[in-house]
Amino acid sequence: VIEILTIGDELISGRTADINAAMIARALHAAGCIVRRVTTVGDAPEDIRLALLTCMQGIRFVIVTGGLGPTEDDRTAVAAADAFNDTLTLHPHALALLRAELSRRGLELNAPRQKQAMLPSTCTPIANPVGTACGFVMRYADRHYLFLPGVPAEACAMMEQFVTGYVNEQAGLRNAMLSVTLRVFGMRESVIQEALDAGPVLPMDVALGFYPHFPEVALRLTGCGPDEALVRDHLEQARVVIEECIGSCIYAEGEVSLPACVGSLLRERGSSVAVAESCTGGLLSHLITGVAGSSGWFERGIVAYSNTAKTQLAGVEKGLIEEHGAVSTAVAQALAQGIRTRAASTYGIGITGIAGPDGGTPEKPVGTVCFAVVGPESCSVHQRCFTGTRDQIKTLSAFTALDLLRRMLLGLQDVETGPSVPL
Amino acid sequence: VIEILTIGDELISGRTADINAAMIARALHAAGCIVRRVTTVGDAPEDIRLALLTCMQGIRFVIVTGGLGPTEDDRTAVAAADAFNDTLTLHPHALALLRAELSRRGLELNAPRQKQAMLPSTCTPIANPVGTACGFVMRYADRHYLFLPGVPAEACAMMEQFVTGYVNEQAGLRNAMLSVTLRVFGMRESVIQEALDAGPVLPMDVALGFYPHFPEVALRLTGCGPDEALVRDHLEQARVVIEECIGSCIYAEGEVSLPACVGSLLRERGSSVAVAESCTGGLLSHLITGVAGSSGWFERGIVAYSNTAKTQLAGVEKGLIEEHGAVSTAVAQALAQGIRTRAASTYGIGITGIAGPDGGTPEKPVGTVCFAVVGPESCSVHQRCFTGTRDQIKTLSAFTALDLLRRMLLGLQDVETGPSVPL
Repeated sequence: VIEILTIGDELISGRTADINAAMIARALHAAGCIVRRVTTVGDAPEDIRLALLTCMQGIRFVIVTGGLGPTEDDRTAVAAADAFNDTLTLHPHALALLRAELSRRGLELNAPRQKQAMLPSTCTPIANPVGTACGFVMRYADRHYLFLPGVPAEACAMMEQFVTGYVNEQAGLRNAMLSVTLRVFGMRESVIQEALDAGPVLPMDVALGFYPHFPEVALRLTGCGPDEALVRDHLEQARVVIEECIGSCIYAEGEVSLPACVGSLLRERGSSVAVAESCTGGLLSHLITGVAGSSGWFERGIVAYSNTAKTQLAGVEKGLIEEHGAVSTAVAQALAQGIRTRAASTYGIGITGIAGPDGGTPEKPVGTVCFAVVGPESCSVHQRCFTGTRDQIKTLSAFTALDLLRRMLLGLQDVETGPSVPL
Repeated sequence: VIEILTIGDELISGRTADINAAMIARALHAAGCIVRRVTTVGDAPEDIRLALLTCMQGIRFVIVTGGLGPTEDDRTAVAAADAFNDTLTLHPHALALLRAELSRRGLELNAPRQKQAMLPSTCTPIANPVGTACGFVMRYADRHYLFLPGVPAEACAMMEQFVTGYVNEQAGLRNAMLSVTLRVFGMRESVIQEALDAGPVLPMDVALGFYPHFPEVALRLTGCGPDEALVRDHLEQARVVIEECIGSCIYAEGEVSLPACVGSLLRERGSSVAVAESCTGGLLSHLITGVAGSSGWFERGIVAYSNTAKTQLAGVEKGLIEEHGAVSTAVAQALAQGIRTRAASTYGIGITGIAGPDGGTPEKPVGTVCFAVVGPESCSVHQRCFTGTRDQIKTLSAFTALDLLRRMLLGLQDVETGPSVPL
């Protein structure tokens, strides 16, 4: 059982959101630890001292972030020394870590920086792999206090490299901990849950976490136990079960975005794509060009907001628009075909729809979006009706288009069960 | 002096970020109150009870969120009754509020919903303007406890409608509180601070808050005092001082985005814009089409990633690209002129640059971006060098282009002092 203490005036004034507390809680939770309480106080040393000493019953570990920097408002070390009847000293080990990090960066050791090595004399420093402020461990009243810097990237790196392992070891868990993340598009959390409920039971020692990040869901499988081979085996069993239940909606494992996944598929095949967007208004191109190196497989995009632009830029015939309306599968297909031909790309995507809040009709309400993906051998055409804000409809539409291309590239069936409402 | 207590297993497991604590802290801070501590515990009633009773010395108000919903894991009311030696009862006032809200929504009063009116007998309910779970106030040990639902929109509405005023009144402040937000693009926080330091001093009773939201900064001026007319007067004085110091970098007051601001200017003038992007890859179009009704003033966009696309879609001559390179002010200008002519729009924007991480050269490093804005009477051309990630460079570039158009529309001088690095 663990407590988290985050420190900083910027946190209690609400000026900055407390990212660290959630990050630490997630990391510890994944490691099988229970967080009982999170406390946040400002930079006043007396408030920090009190917060360090008023733990809940049964707490063995306290993870503290913030207040270890070089400036005057960084007062955690002095408050810790005060709380635990220690004094600050220029800590030799911390100073060595600091010098090494500074020389790596070609920086001088000046007075403010040296302050970062002024630590309680009885502490054990923790190396900071991505910054100059080292952390430290102190023992007091049968509890382990682990102090980390407040910069989220630094706190996160130190959690991964040191804290999780330390807690596991000191708590006598000595468990192997393995995890895998499956990235899902096209199924809402509740639908995934239903599909899993209908399938085989997961191995007992594998925990499943849902991390919805609109419009996607990440599923994190974490296995934990004393026998690493067994954990690996059970994790793989769980992965197979989940793949059987939700199959082609899993587009990748690990830290891969849907645009990057589609980009890899195109690159592997020496293929390229061009897009003609209307209601997504450039978002699809923006997502694609967010992938480094996308110029290798993305030739061009057009944002054809007006009918004239659809005709001029993608050769959509005026008569087709008059007959079917600008928001129609026929126009989506003409956009996809037109842009594919003009860009001489392997694939073409066309999107046209009504993102709202105005512009809907009873037949084609706000959220109606038509898609077409045209490739060398086939054409996939869809009409969907999303709900949500203008921004959510744009996002769902752009991701849906990418997913339709992914399915065509992999020869998968299109699904009609995708998320039509915000998750 | 105030404490905040947020409740929920989803918070201590890190599954959900704690939005409420920061929102409440900001609201109270703006109202001149000091938050000393934020505590988060899970749904266990004993943990909630303890957290309610272990306040810091001198605390007069405790704002609590979470655990007031209809499901079984909502246990805040029972924990509060337990902590303050009270019992739960079907509270008549809460029931009346609940019935009114349900009938407004055409919903039935079923057992789970009725649970939301089971409150400590001595509490005073607080109406929820946007949901069914009402809040409540309790007094204990000379402290005021204000309980709000955990749904952020509901907690936020109740903060605005009730809590801030209640705290002000009970604390005997009876202050008028006025504020204004100035939206700034083109100056980093530290540069704004420098400019303000060089100018006249702000009235003492006006507080200035910086809220950087990449790539912009919002400046929030809050005036507070017993005499509303005086507060209004001082707030206006402060606004004038700030406008004199940073002038044309303030693009709007209140909740207006830069794309929406540019859209209003175009609409007022009956003008329109079309854009030809390269390195921003659709982001500029996406920002523009994020504004509802943008189809009234945005005709088209092109994402001309390849040189062929630049030639085909915007008529940029091959020779020009060969002579100056694709990333050049000459090509930016040709893109802007080409798209303006073809779209028959009032204004045309062209952007070409190197977003990275690869593609830089010693003469044109990653982050080099060329801009052109062409209007009926003038043409504004710029070259900038940004630093940051691919995504940050795309964002800075798209906002810079919008700001250049804004300045042309308003007849303002272009500034070369804009943010060339992430804020």
